[in-house]
Amino acid sequence: MYTPNAEPSLSEVFSLAKYRVGGNGSRNIGVLKAALEQVDDHIESDIYGTGGVIEQFQEKIAKFLGKENAVFFPSGTMAQQIALRIWCDELGVNKVAYHPLCHLEIHEQDGLKRLHHIEPILLSDKDHLITLSDVQNLQENIACLLIELPQREIGGQLSEYSELVEISRYCRDKGIKLHLDGARLFEVLPYYQKTAAEICELFDSVYVSFYKGIGGIAGAMLVGNETFTAESKIWKRRYGGDLISLYPYIISSEYYFNLRVGRMEEYYKAAKRLAEKFNRSCNIETRPRVPVSNMFHVMFSAPKEKVEKALIQVYKENGIGITGNLREYTDTTCYCEISIGDQYGMIPDEVLDTAFTLLDGKMK
Amino acid sequence: MYTPNAEPSLSEVFSLAKYRVGGNGSRNIGVLKAALEQVDDHIESDIYGTGGVIEQFQEKIAKFLGKENAVFFPSGTMAQQIALRIWCDELGVNKVAYHPLCHLEIHEQDGLKRLHHIEPILLSDKDHLITLSDVQNLQENIACLLIELPQREIGGQLSEYSELVEISRYCRDKGIKLHLDGARLFEVLPYYQKTAAEICELFDSVYVSFYKGIGGIAGAMLVGNETFTAESKIWKRRYGGDLISLYPYIISSEYYFNLRVGRMEEYYKAAKRLAEKFNRSCNIETRPRVPVSNMFHVMFSAPKEKVEKALIQVYKENGIGITGNLREYTDTTCYCEISIGDQYGMIPDEVLDTAFTLLDGKMK
Repeated sequence: MYTPNAEPSLSEVFSLAKYRVGGNGSRNIGVLKAALEQVDDHIESDIYGTGGVIEQFQEKIAKFLGKENAVFFPSGTMAQQIALRIWCDELGVNKVAYHPLCHLEIHEQDGLKRLHHIEPILLSDKDHLITLSDVQNLQENIACLLIELPQREIGGQLSEYSELVEISRYCRDKGIKLHLDGARLFEVLPYYQKTAAEICELFDSVYVSFYKGIGGIAGAMLVGNETFTAESKIWKRRYGGDLISLYPYIISSEYYFNLRVGRMEEYYKAAKRLAEKFNRSCNIETRPRVPVSNMFHVMFSAPKEKVEKALIQVYKENGIGITGNLREYTDTTCYCEISIGDQYGMIPDEVLDTAFTLLDGKMK
Repeated sequence: MYTPNAEPSLSEVFSLAKYRVGGNGSRNIGVLKAALEQVDDHIESDIYGTGGVIEQFQEKIAKFLGKENAVFFPSGTMAQQIALRIWCDELGVNKVAYHPLCHLEIHEQDGLKRLHHIEPILLSDKDHLITLSDVQNLQENIACLLIELPQREIGGQLSEYSELVEISRYCRDKGIKLHLDGARLFEVLPYYQKTAAEICELFDSVYVSFYKGIGGIAGAMLVGNETFTAESKIWKRRYGGDLISLYPYIISSEYYFNLRVGRMEEYYKAAKRLAEKFNRSCNIETRPRVPVSNMFHVMFSAPKEKVEKALIQVYKENGIGITGNLREYTDTTCYCEISIGDQYGMIPDEVLDTAFTLLDGKMK
């Protein structure tokens, strides 16, 4: 129904905002064009997983992550299901363990179960991180444990490095393969003060994404040893992910990787500063209270409708978009996710301060 | 090992050729750039299968094929496995039937079997088309019959339209779903003198490709009724094919679809003319003898090594690339595939005639 004088929705307002606190900007077609401008027209396409365009980038990422080999995939969904399947086949066990809010459990329409008949054991409760004792107390025999760094759905929380080391040692002792969901791996390196290779060394297989903090169009990489990656290419073909040409994703992934992988410290520091501003506001708290990456959740102690109105008014009075996607948490609380990228640095300090003064007033 | 004076291989020669008899030219990055140049930078990406960019193109193709709905997929491998799985689930039968040289049987690393435990019954022998009596004589209960038009691996042969009608009627009577592998559907319309919708009307589900005759980067569409396509979207998510952004493939698919779908008659006629030239040459014959689409196979009655040398010499003396990929058929015969596209029309008549005079001499 056409309602000419309807109030714009929060997502509409967000898409129109002059300034946005999170993200790397619009996902428009200019994002791809900018990446392609750097590349000669005559460079040949990759062909079914072979050719310079794909092989050089795979080698670069394998090296960056300190692993033998890497395979470019169109998506992390495909890459991770395949990783778990390979480990299950290798160990002859059709069980894996992961967090209750793991991407495979809540965002993939049960692909792992429906395509592979792999049974996931859910470790920890959904509000906490998986701990060493969760792993030690596992009753079932599993092929693989999947750890997500940071745990996105609870605000991007992180285990301490020392605990990861202990979990890794325990899994190696028990013959359990350890897989890293590193969709946001680059984003947590400044907190750990480790190289990507130092983190990946704890894991048998690693998936990284090129469109989260990196801000590419789409695309993922799966890394591990030669046997593992060779097997993953066969499964990529089975899935229909071994496209004749993946270069639109490869070229853009590499371009934005080069552009942003060195900016993660900057995003992380900005996230901590921004979280402080939220935490000083009335009825607002971030999760985690002090971010450990470029991301965090903002928890509002007010019903979704009220907060939505407040956020739209802040935008109208000040031109700033805080989020376009507010989610109900309970009847009387709601939350949104903030991921800091290039956009944050473009907001003048006084505009940001005014926005928080406005928000604070409206949340009282 | 670096061998400075090594003879260039057939595929190297082909890639350097000034003229090529088949194809739409190089698959270089300029192909994507040309498609993107037409599009405004500020157009927003599709997001997980939604948004104007994907929805408008899906509607256009659904209409062109005369079906209720269409879903864009990154690949035909993914699209077709999903189509067969949906029909198997709907009928509660885990068997399908297709040709022994079906793409699912020979190019997908057994994805259908390994991911879905669907058992294919191979109909007809590998040198012939599936006939009505092959279908009538089926002993097993199957959920779905897959027909490929044209049958690529045997030179792009085609059943007569009247036989398709009879197969379709038989399948409907028996409650067997009929799926069309229409990777090259647009290419066969001039032979049938039918619209795409008239062909698709015989089938319950149809897959078409945008990088065969159309010459896009990659991408496919699955069409059918609303229930079928809705279910296919869920499976697309399970496969990891529901990318946050598919627009690089969508925009290029639509661009090259618009450019070339109207040229199929021209390619078909050129294929017939070119096949005549091959058939007049010594020890060369095309399959089919008279092409029924833009494609055919060239069968050489000589060992692969001899023919390879002959083709390289023709290129050296005349600058023309006939094929970059010669395949052994028996110890004393070999073959290649020719698909006519935009390149054929660029060859001056006298260059082509000289090439065939040369080839004829070398094949004696």
